[in-house]
Amino acid sequence: MTRTVPALVVKSAGAAFERSTIPRREVGEHDVQIDIAYAGICHSDIHQSREEWGQAIFPMVPGHEIAGIVSEVGSAVTKHKVGDRVGIGCFVDSCRECVNCLAGNDQFCLKGNVATYNGRQYSGEETYGGYSTQIVADENYVLSIPEGIGLDAAAPLLCAGITLYSPLKHWNAGPGKKVAIVGMGGLGHMGVKIAHALGAEVTVLSQTLSKREDGRRLGADDYFATSDPATFEENKGRFDLIITTVSVDLDVDAYLSLLALDGTLVFAGLPENPQSLSVFSLAGARRSVAGANNGSIRETQEMLDFCAAHGLGADIEVIGAEQVDGAYTRVIGSDVRYRFVIDTSTIPASVS
Amino acid sequence: MTRTVPALVVKSAGAAFERSTIPRREVGEHDVQIDIAYAGICHSDIHQSREEWGQAIFPMVPGHEIAGIVSEVGSAVTKHKVGDRVGIGCFVDSCRECVNCLAGNDQFCLKGNVATYNGRQYSGEETYGGYSTQIVADENYVLSIPEGIGLDAAAPLLCAGITLYSPLKHWNAGPGKKVAIVGMGGLGHMGVKIAHALGAEVTVLSQTLSKREDGRRLGADDYFATSDPATFEENKGRFDLIITTVSVDLDVDAYLSLLALDGTLVFAGLPENPQSLSVFSLAGARRSVAGANNGSIRETQEMLDFCAAHGLGADIEVIGAEQVDGAYTRVIGSDVRYRFVIDTSTIPASVS
Repeated sequence: MTRTVPALVVKSAGAAFERSTIPRREVGEHDVQIDIAYAGICHSDIHQSREEWGQAIFPMVPGHEIAGIVSEVGSAVTKHKVGDRVGIGCFVDSCRECVNCLAGNDQFCLKGNVATYNGRQYSGEETYGGYSTQIVADENYVLSIPEGIGLDAAAPLLCAGITLYSPLKHWNAGPGKKVAIVGMGGLGHMGVKIAHALGAEVTVLSQTLSKREDGRRLGADDYFATSDPATFEENKGRFDLIITTVSVDLDVDAYLSLLALDGTLVFAGLPENPQSLSVFSLAGARRSVAGANNGSIRETQEMLDFCAAHGLGADIEVIGAEQVDGAYTRVIGSDVRYRFVIDTSTIPASVS
Repeated sequence: MTRTVPALVVKSAGAAFERSTIPRREVGEHDVQIDIAYAGICHSDIHQSREEWGQAIFPMVPGHEIAGIVSEVGSAVTKHKVGDRVGIGCFVDSCRECVNCLAGNDQFCLKGNVATYNGRQYSGEETYGGYSTQIVADENYVLSIPEGIGLDAAAPLLCAGITLYSPLKHWNAGPGKKVAIVGMGGLGHMGVKIAHALGAEVTVLSQTLSKREDGRRLGADDYFATSDPATFEENKGRFDLIITTVSVDLDVDAYLSLLALDGTLVFAGLPENPQSLSVFSLAGARRSVAGANNGSIRETQEMLDFCAAHGLGADIEVIGAEQVDGAYTRVIGSDVRYRFVIDTSTIPASVS
């Protein structure tokens, strides 16, 4: 059985958002129903709603940075109760049986986990994301948002936060480590905050110096413009870890030259095109290039608890439903500091 | 002061070898003089003598897989004595002061270590390699070859052996790990032997199945032809570590698809051209691409001791000075099982 709930819908690739309704399943035994308060706008929402990342499912309701309050729970639910502050990130189910799921790496489920939107449940039904007023999901894929982070500032942590936290932890960012974050956008600004809170020396490598003051305020020790060739001379062999958050083509060899022995360049932003590199750039100092993808449910909870303990949330600009199309344009123009968050109470047609 | 010793010399890029003489320095306080018995032929000898890896120094005497007997030592030498079985690998000096040298990673000396041939000492004088009858080097860059490995079978360990041993150890090949070696040539056959001796499950990925029996004899548990597309289907997500020893362009994404979660593809063979890959191939399972370059002096000694303890040497074909040009042609045609080693007693003109 399903019901319908208000949502912002894209009916075909690249179309404008429309207020409409979408089906949501009834609350099952293991399900949690969440009244969504805020949904962050992730750059990947734009890619997918424009069908830039392969075949997409329309109508589409983007949104995988979801924060809200539990409004109903199934009879077997033990992790959450009505009134809890909760969130949903990039996936709402995984097979729970493969070697990766069993090891707690459900973000790398071998069957393929169920994307929060533009995906299909294992039963076949389409998934719809957070640009709506309510969502129903299995309790195991619902995170607890600790007191101390506003639901609005917490929403972007569910993707932008974990997408940086996971590689920073995996590649041991911490005291004595020199970390560079490439790009000062939604992902990058969380990377600076988290890397700094982890105790690493943090450098921002941004196209220009326009956000330098912000970078320092968020915890960056150093800030360089990648448009200035001197940046690559001055920082040669400096970093243990570089995480790039941009999705444009990169001069990979130039970034590799900034790594010290055994350093790693991690792609957290994913350029669509193949990237080219010289293996001599790797071999010269046993460097690595790696890719990261989100984080596990377990790690996401750990990240939320870490952010709460360190007073970290995203820097956000809250918008209403009618501003989403314009926000997409601004995200593409890097004109947001640093994440748009939709106030989902503005979605029902009666509000407009 | 210098003396001259017989050597096989290439006078210009791609020229045939000629018997000639080259200068060797007098034995200094910290130096060891080695009467060379055998010198292995490494594929990089061919690249460099044909000036395929950037500007080269001519006349050139290749050879960085050198095994012989100490015939003289300087007054301050403590590591070696006359009569010792010793070897020299890819470099004969390093700055000894940089952070990498101080940490024992002298193969990644930030000043640039001194290549055994086609290089320059820090004083500026050209270096000449092992295709000769005698060499003089600082004792710290001279390795001890344990009893139990013939000098002929030991020579290739100084490059081919350490070039595989170092990444196998660095990326934790051992019991419970699934390792693939790409290419069954000079490097690859040592990779199979060493990975097997380390306790890993070893698979060879070779262009054809022509060397399968050899592979199994050397310790491979499995053997697949990369020319067969089914190989990439059957082994999807299987390996923790893939070390490629070939220097041709690679379909990097295809090899990445063979890696399990957190797996690493290591380039031990270095293709000249830039390589292309999709970052989605990395991000899908937090995979890495890395490059390795030889090993440190400390590691090289560890490798020699390990090989002696496990009865490992290279599978070789010993040749005389007049066969070197032909051997180069055969190496390029993958027609050697598995390493040519020059009997350097055939180099002096009087022998021919």
